[in-house]
Amino acid sequence: MTELEFIDQLKKLATHPAARGLCDDAAVIPFGRHKLVMTHDMLVEGVHFLPEADAADVAWKLVAVNLSDLAAKGAKPMGVLMGYSRGNDDIWDAAFVRGLKEALASFSVPLLGGDTVSSGENGRRTMGLTAFGEARGHIVPARSGAAPGHSIYVTGNIGDAWAGLQLASGTAQAADFEISAALLKAHNRPAPRLEDGRALSPLVSSMMDISDGLLLDASRIADASNVRMEIDLGEVPLSEPFVAVFGESEDARMKAATGGDDYQLLLTASPETVLPTKLTKIGQCRAGSGVSLVQKGEEVGLPASLGFVHA
Amino acid sequence: MTELEFIDQLKKLATHPAARGLCDDAAVIPFGRHKLVMTHDMLVEGVHFLPEADAADVAWKLVAVNLSDLAAKGAKPMGVLMGYSRGNDDIWDAAFVRGLKEALASFSVPLLGGDTVSSGENGRRTMGLTAFGEARGHIVPARSGAAPGHSIYVTGNIGDAWAGLQLASGTAQAADFEISAALLKAHNRPAPRLEDGRALSPLVSSMMDISDGLLLDASRIADASNVRMEIDLGEVPLSEPFVAVFGESEDARMKAATGGDDYQLLLTASPETVLPTKLTKIGQCRAGSGVSLVQKGEEVGLPASLGFVHA
Repeated sequence: MTELEFIDQLKKLATHPAARGLCDDAAVIPFGRHKLVMTHDMLVEGVHFLPEADAADVAWKLVAVNLSDLAAKGAKPMGVLMGYSRGNDDIWDAAFVRGLKEALASFSVPLLGGDTVSSGENGRRTMGLTAFGEARGHIVPARSGAAPGHSIYVTGNIGDAWAGLQLASGTAQAADFEISAALLKAHNRPAPRLEDGRALSPLVSSMMDISDGLLLDASRIADASNVRMEIDLGEVPLSEPFVAVFGESEDARMKAATGGDDYQLLLTASPETVLPTKLTKIGQCRAGSGVSLVQKGEEVGLPASLGFVHA
Repeated sequence: MTELEFIDQLKKLATHPAARGLCDDAAVIPFGRHKLVMTHDMLVEGVHFLPEADAADVAWKLVAVNLSDLAAKGAKPMGVLMGYSRGNDDIWDAAFVRGLKEALASFSVPLLGGDTVSSGENGRRTMGLTAFGEARGHIVPARSGAAPGHSIYVTGNIGDAWAGLQLASGTAQAADFEISAALLKAHNRPAPRLEDGRALSPLVSSMMDISDGLLLDASRIADASNVRMEIDLGEVPLSEPFVAVFGESEDARMKAATGGDDYQLLLTASPETVLPTKLTKIGQCRAGSGVSLVQKGEEVGLPASLGFVHA
């Protein structure tokens, strides 16, 4: 049984409409006159972070990836609960708590509960975080509302976290410290687009956060909405630091579009919708299915992998 | 750094009133006109369950222990999110999904989301569950409201889960199958007292669920409320199956009172309060601190361990 087969087993249990078929970034539950939006994502040592990673960065990322799911649904974070499986390294744990404190303060979200356990002799550190928030008085965007003719947008720049990972792992070098610092920060300290998410959510036809790679995540909107997501590779926004290290060749753009860990928002909207935040239009929804790529009006073949699929 | 020292670090971060100082069974968050009650507990292979445990029972317990925290706060469960770290055993996973389905159906609570990861080569299975529910229109009981003169009560019987563990691990035998089945069920398939919790919560001065042992959990109410919890060992309710195997000697009663995993409710109330459910009065709050024991009017010494403290 692969992980996907196991998840299929769970999907058969998760028939409540609030579960959104386990196919969305978060569960959306009516609560009084508002909606409660809730998500739970885990990080595992050796899978989602390297054993030598800075524990403070791991804690930051644990908070950020979960809040990013709330951002994608336009929810204002209300709190988090953490499940933490400890190793036997006090210095690591202390750094983790420091990073957790920094993230909670930076995103103004309180730690409200959870559990701690020992990961045992040979265990990997495993941590889960439940983040929940409130979406007020409007429809909470799903992945399923895109329609042919709708424009495709992203917030921010794409590829910086991937670029930071290359610098961190030594497969690339930056010419100067500032460039390096900017890309490493994108990798180590992602910032969920909470304000953008809240401003955009009443207006979009679909929205999700980009965690596994722009193309792979776009294919999820394509699947949920029964559209083809045509993305113009030349329009994918790259940062100056990214371009300084990797250029803006088709190959570099493809790396950015499949690299993952961006935590920007990917959204669609009817072309006449006036959107309130700074966005880059990167393509258009068309009849069909899946993702297709163009650049300068020419079709571009899809890469072998659209993004990062966790084992 | 011990687990308690680590938790102290987290408590310094959890200053929001909804966190209840990380000292209660659950977080209690105002949401619209109602209160959202939320908890997250983990189970780890080798710590909370044996590697040879029936995976369906583990899943049941994961749901039950979390819903028990909601029961203790009088909340009606609304949903759960699960974080699941898988081993490489499809049969185990399939049994887990079956037990999860049974528990969710039995307690009428939907699975709404979560995450699955691989526990890796040498990893232990680790699973966390976030359960949340709604408490309507009244104060959600804490552990801190007990006062001298208040009576101490429990729901149900105490010690059956401990007795079942002795049968499961072969340190005791039952004379007949029905007795064995009843005690094993208490151990393997605990039933959170959800209805009792909701009926009692507007009326009690303090309430919690008994997870780590009656005496240890009573000491937590004592600490939170600044009272002494005087418990009459002779009044601790034992089931017929328990008595059939272990008798009702002081020693047997002490095992029941420290054994843990009961998932009954422990509560205090002013003696004139009329309580709506079947309860057993087991003692009285007095001025002072900690837990003390009496039997037939005589003081009884405390055991070396008041309950089960997880490593």
